[in-house]
Amino acid sequence: MKLKFKLAQINLFVGNFEYNLNKINGILKKADQDKTDIVIFPEMAITGYPPDDLLYKKRFIENNLDILKKISTHCTKCICIIGFVNFVDRGSKINNEGSGLYNSAAVIANKKIQYIYNKINLPNYNIFDEKRYFKPGKRIPVIDIKGIRFGLGICEDIWVDNSPVYDQAEHGRTDFIININASPYYINKRKERTSLLNKISSKTNNYIFYLNVVGAQDGIVFDGNSMVFNNKGEMILGAAQFKEDIIDIVLDFKAGKTFKSDPKKIDLIKISNFIPSQHSSEKNFDDPFFLPEKEEVYNALILGTKDYIIKNNFKKVILGLSGGIDSAMTAAIAVDAIGQSNVISLFMPSRYSSESSFRDAQKLSKNLKIELISLPIEKIYDTYLKEFKPFFKDKAFDSTEENIQARIRGNMLMAFSNKFGYLVLTTGNKSEMSTGYATLYGDMAGGYAVLKDVYKTLVYDLARYRNAKAGYDLIPDSIISKAPSAELKEDQKDTDSLPPYDTLDQILILYIEEHCSYKDIMALKRFNKNIVSKVINLVDKSEYKRRQSPPGIKITKCSLGRDRRMPITSGYILK
Amino acid sequence: MKLKFKLAQINLFVGNFEYNLNKINGILKKADQDKTDIVIFPEMAITGYPPDDLLYKKRFIENNLDILKKISTHCTKCICIIGFVNFVDRGSKINNEGSGLYNSAAVIANKKIQYIYNKINLPNYNIFDEKRYFKPGKRIPVIDIKGIRFGLGICEDIWVDNSPVYDQAEHGRTDFIININASPYYINKRKERTSLLNKISSKTNNYIFYLNVVGAQDGIVFDGNSMVFNNKGEMILGAAQFKEDIIDIVLDFKAGKTFKSDPKKIDLIKISNFIPSQHSSEKNFDDPFFLPEKEEVYNALILGTKDYIIKNNFKKVILGLSGGIDSAMTAAIAVDAIGQSNVISLFMPSRYSSESSFRDAQKLSKNLKIELISLPIEKIYDTYLKEFKPFFKDKAFDSTEENIQARIRGNMLMAFSNKFGYLVLTTGNKSEMSTGYATLYGDMAGGYAVLKDVYKTLVYDLARYRNAKAGYDLIPDSIISKAPSAELKEDQKDTDSLPPYDTLDQILILYIEEHCSYKDIMALKRFNKNIVSKVINLVDKSEYKRRQSPPGIKITKCSLGRDRRMPITSGYILK
Repeated sequence: MKLKFKLAQINLFVGNFEYNLNKINGILKKADQDKTDIVIFPEMAITGYPPDDLLYKKRFIENNLDILKKISTHCTKCICIIGFVNFVDRGSKINNEGSGLYNSAAVIANKKIQYIYNKINLPNYNIFDEKRYFKPGKRIPVIDIKGIRFGLGICEDIWVDNSPVYDQAEHGRTDFIININASPYYINKRKERTSLLNKISSKTNNYIFYLNVVGAQDGIVFDGNSMVFNNKGEMILGAAQFKEDIIDIVLDFKAGKTFKSDPKKIDLIKISNFIPSQHSSEKNFDDPFFLPEKEEVYNALILGTKDYIIKNNFKKVILGLSGGIDSAMTAAIAVDAIGQSNVISLFMPSRYSSESSFRDAQKLSKNLKIELISLPIEKIYDTYLKEFKPFFKDKAFDSTEENIQARIRGNMLMAFSNKFGYLVLTTGNKSEMSTGYATLYGDMAGGYAVLKDVYKTLVYDLARYRNAKAGYDLIPDSIISKAPSAELKEDQKDTDSLPPYDTLDQILILYIEEHCSYKDIMALKRFNKNIVSKVINLVDKSEYKRRQSPPGIKITKCSLGRDRRMPITSGYILK
Repeated sequence: MKLKFKLAQINLFVGNFEYNLNKINGILKKADQDKTDIVIFPEMAITGYPPDDLLYKKRFIENNLDILKKISTHCTKCICIIGFVNFVDRGSKINNEGSGLYNSAAVIANKKIQYIYNKINLPNYNIFDEKRYFKPGKRIPVIDIKGIRFGLGICEDIWVDNSPVYDQAEHGRTDFIININASPYYINKRKERTSLLNKISSKTNNYIFYLNVVGAQDGIVFDGNSMVFNNKGEMILGAAQFKEDIIDIVLDFKAGKTFKSDPKKIDLIKISNFIPSQHSSEKNFDDPFFLPEKEEVYNALILGTKDYIIKNNFKKVILGLSGGIDSAMTAAIAVDAIGQSNVISLFMPSRYSSESSFRDAQKLSKNLKIELISLPIEKIYDTYLKEFKPFFKDKAFDSTEENIQARIRGNMLMAFSNKFGYLVLTTGNKSEMSTGYATLYGDMAGGYAVLKDVYKTLVYDLARYRNAKAGYDLIPDSIISKAPSAELKEDQKDTDSLPPYDTLDQILILYIEEHCSYKDIMALKRFNKNIVSKVINLVDKSEYKRRQSPPGIKITKCSLGRDRRMPITSGYILK
């Protein structure tokens, strides 16, 4: 029996039910027109993901159930699988697993909800807090369409060791598995996904339809990357990454297996009054193609930036351009996200700014075709110093004076933001944010931190990638090749306060991503003792700064935000 | 059989194992000296609570297990119950419930760990994230000392409907229950606790030893308030709130019940080679006494402030004194927490500051005996305005200019902080933080927000309470009686932008604490439609500000911090 599938890899909007409904309805309409048999939407498609504590609002849950009802009346010809938030009270009829809230998938056919699957495996680590809201389901579903059977699961369900897919395949005699996702991007995630899907499809002898959402929510990037695997572990379809992609695929399944399924292990739901359309099975999709790593990261940053700006109703952004690599890359990403006419840059020199910084900022803004406003901080800085003189007396210049400069700049950017409604993008990278090499309320002031999860060494790689793509030095070579400096005092270099970035980043990756201890890192015999202890101390002591930093885009497994929840107050030092 | 109990309501330090070990050892020594039979320490006493993602560090877990081992060798005469983090690998011998991390209690006697109870009920709501780290235990323990039996549980275990205490009492035939806690304070929590303990002790016919930790961690205040209930539901002992309190109590139990316990339901652990000491059972503790609500809240704020300052190694604090009620109360609390010589106040007037503000600030600082530094922002503000003139041209005065003033003040406070190592206390209250009536990087700049969870109307109540306690107007009456103003423009009043605070606070409580929707609130027919929608919109739109706000002290059930995790990006508007 030939079945036509539509995988709706769409960009949804947390809490914006009208927006999500319109998008879903458009696809359902298309599905009716082109005779799709099974149309699949992502995990929690109706609410967007993750809605966090909006889930504590009763009306939010009711609204989401109302939308589900509306959607079900639109499903006239096709079978629709869609993620939503299920609220079970005592009187519920469909799959009543006890009262509570569930992360669920509805199976809709003939304008009716035929079954509701409640997610069994709830992730509660890294960025995930699903056990804060949801109860785990228990029943494992297998859907039967005239003898063709498929298992249904949600995201985490395929990642756990004792995945329900094995019960579905063994006891439910399934032909294919549908797994709907809200699966966040990080570097190497794609490899983890493909090797998992390879394993599961070959082990279960099932086709797998892996559908992921696309779009960003407060810096969590969902990259799409939906895939179909055949029952031999081979990927036969790969959707685009970082953009919407509605994919059709026709596959032929042989009905009429003689094996019975085990009713103790699974819920078998027969959708009997459903007639599949007639389809040719010619190949109607492109070969799987995926981006190389640098391009992948860069695109994640573009999507993360764009979605934050648009979904928060901003039109234009402003950022401080220092002549350094971080602000240059932030500007380039902003331009790629929302266009050069919507990006304003501010050059705010002090007595410590070099001539070359201004030249570099000018060159860059010219290359990017963005407005550059020059507004020196000198007079204001001078006034501050005079006002503080009676109190600071002869105390030596120290980080106080450096921070004053940075905070004047923060104040300037925020004034433009307040006056003209621009979003301020901050430009700090992960190496700086990890070590606290940044001024709270200074260069950390702003609504969104584009490079917050990008180590300095990767910032350089991305600059080179972007230049290669442009075919010329879009980011001027002088910016890439000069020694990094905050230019907050005479002849300052980052290496005055920090180890060289290639060393620093290696230690940070071990300490932050790999959860290595001081002893673990020293055992590698790759780093100097004093440097390692310095770096770890810097990370531990700057937690209070990160707690007040703007959200940024997650591109690693352990971003500095909801991935990493360290106490500020801690007596745990250098172990 | 007479048993002497020692309840160690102590203040522990997250991650500071040496500190915690010293404190615990001191009490164990005392217990040996005064012939205590059973000494009880709080939940996760060894690590402090909550250690958050420190729990992801392997060495942190190992260190905690090493400390447990050390403690066990010190338990020569008494039985010790103590909370720690249990790591079970495949080879573990004691109560192996599968490999993983558990929130556990050790029962130590004769220098040996006799049993490890793994917490069954893990809270994962409000401030709690225990399912992020821990697996739930399954086995329900009953400890037998020469025929006297007790059930052991940890915190949440007594709060759930099907609490293990009922199995312990019914199938384990227990005489008393020991429940160790890290239970955060909020208004009314005490009533919830006492009514729960009343119910459980009378229903199970068991004595209950309820031990809570005391101290604050990043603004979560553990208030102690440990209690002992007899088997008729009567409180017979109540420890102090908000301070350490080591309590001894001698109780007489009759051994030799003939009923058998059910081994399928419970783990029965006999501690046979233990000899209780001889005790007189005269009453050796005070009658239960608890604080009235305002005093309770005020003491929570003192403890929250003090512990944050001390545990983060600060000696002195600085804050901006505006002449208003919020900064006045913040100063008073700081003085009560760390003494007047450690509190520095900064009065930073602008052209919009009234004469009376300065008088009030002076009067207050005189009453509190704190240093008052006067440092006008006028020259700096003027320089900013001149610098912005070419860009802002003839655009009208708006929140931009207001925010510039607030941010100059933020910059000044931070400069003092950087130069002299003071912690900056912010002064905003919960009404302001909820509605976003505060300037990011301005009055929100600082390390710790004392009144973050205190509604404006409660701030006034606390001022009156503090004055009554002082016996005179410590907080000058002129500060309490004047109309609140941010003084950021001519003749400004808070009521220009916000509803009167008594109305505002009522709506905020409904929307934030009670999770009411717009429709729910309107259904009460108590408020004007436009006011309700305005307030809700203000709350929803200022999430981005709260995300960058400093931590503050939790005193309500739903503080603005880890209690309330709302998305910044949200299309869910006024439902």
